[in-house]
Amino acid sequence: MNILLTNDDGIYAPGLAALYHELKHFGEVQVVAPESEQSAVGHAITLMTPLRVKEVCLDGGLTGFSVSGFPADCVKIAMAELLSSPPDLVVSGINLGPNVGINVLYSGTVSAATEAAILGLKGVAFSLDSYDQRADFAAAGRLAREVLEQIRGWSAWNNGICLNVNLPNLPRAEIKGFRVTRQDTGPLVEHFERRVDPRRHVYYWLAEINARPATNPDTDYGALGQGYVSITPIHHDLTNYPSLKDLSALEWE
Amino acid sequence: MNILLTNDDGIYAPGLAALYHELKHFGEVQVVAPESEQSAVGHAITLMTPLRVKEVCLDGGLTGFSVSGFPADCVKIAMAELLSSPPDLVVSGINLGPNVGINVLYSGTVSAATEAAILGLKGVAFSLDSYDQRADFAAAGRLAREVLEQIRGWSAWNNGICLNVNLPNLPRAEIKGFRVTRQDTGPLVEHFERRVDPRRHVYYWLAEINARPATNPDTDYGALGQGYVSITPIHHDLTNYPSLKDLSALEWE
Repeated sequence: MNILLTNDDGIYAPGLAALYHELKHFGEVQVVAPESEQSAVGHAITLMTPLRVKEVCLDGGLTGFSVSGFPADCVKIAMAELLSSPPDLVVSGINLGPNVGINVLYSGTVSAATEAAILGLKGVAFSLDSYDQRADFAAAGRLAREVLEQIRGWSAWNNGICLNVNLPNLPRAEIKGFRVTRQDTGPLVEHFERRVDPRRHVYYWLAEINARPATNPDTDYGALGQGYVSITPIHHDLTNYPSLKDLSALEWE
Repeated sequence: MNILLTNDDGIYAPGLAALYHELKHFGEVQVVAPESEQSAVGHAITLMTPLRVKEVCLDGGLTGFSVSGFPADCVKIAMAELLSSPPDLVVSGINLGPNVGINVLYSGTVSAATEAAILGLKGVAFSLDSYDQRADFAAAGRLAREVLEQIRGWSAWNNGICLNVNLPNLPRAEIKGFRVTRQDTGPLVEHFERRVDPRRHVYYWLAEINARPATNPDTDYGALGQGYVSITPIHHDLTNYPSLKDLSALEWE
């Protein structure tokens, strides 16, 4: 199996290295990742500036290409310029921090997997439910490998769908299991902090996202909050099909 | 009616001014828009840096707030800090350039309307099928107003849905009509141009998006290409529901 590995925390992130070492069990791994952290960039792509690509060699034998762009740029340029043949799988992560609910829309990690689906490839995004830089990414990597062992057997996996996987930050024995979930669509709980800078100018900073209780284990947010690995199939057709008929019935001339 | 107006081309863009003048026919219009152009930013939000807000007064009586962030940031901070009450409608545009097919995912214009839906508001994005800075935005604004007159009457419009509207760059008499469409999911036709800089370093630039023939008028891309105003209802639940059962049937322990 040929695997393309990317992320949104940048090519030097520990979550990427942990995943790299587990992915090697499945075959050849090519790394093409942002040269610096690109969190909350959503599905941004780089149009107005060029992309620079550099070869990178890291400890532990990881080699790859860094790209001066967003996660989606990495998948695009890997396919167009850097890989000799299309990969069998595109893996993104492991992200520092969960990507569940509305935050899926803001996630650079998930957008890389979505970009894979757009380009006709299988994509999987992995995120860890922790914001601690020293989280146990080795354990998270082993858990990601368990997920990949299972989804390799998903015969109906077509190319328009990618998987958004969220991993609890718990010892393996405390993880309750695996759940296939839908995206939570509940409201974000967030606010702006209003501050004053040293020159007495006001500025604002977005604070507190997703502090609701996570009650419904059928959703990504709920399953993760209750200690399950959450696996959500997502797609990039944003059409709200149930509205088409109804909206067409308006008196358009 | 209270309307929040934003865009992704920045608060000084002619498309925003044209829309402003038409929206005034519906009620009060508050402008909160990025201080500079933010194209192809997708649903990016600003987490790592603060946001600055400035009052702006423009020719033609347009006043508003510029925000040092992305379109989605503008909607968030307008709701949280700048507006005295929630608007009845959030309008984004008019974007210079169409937002159809896969490009919907990359669009800052559409992400502002989606952000409105996330926050429980009605959102509409308008984009013009032209990349010419001197396009006739006044005509496009009048056409946008026609669309708004119709969709005001859509009684089933619930808050989880926003509308992605694309306007042909044609004289009114040449526009074929209005079509409610689904998002085109066909592949992008794009490539990277490989260039060499004055210091002999290689760089890459993304080129040519969506050069396929636009044949199916049931899609946003096809309808626009054939001279129709395209109106697509979109949502932010990315779950691929048909896969849930099938994926759950794998042997998860």
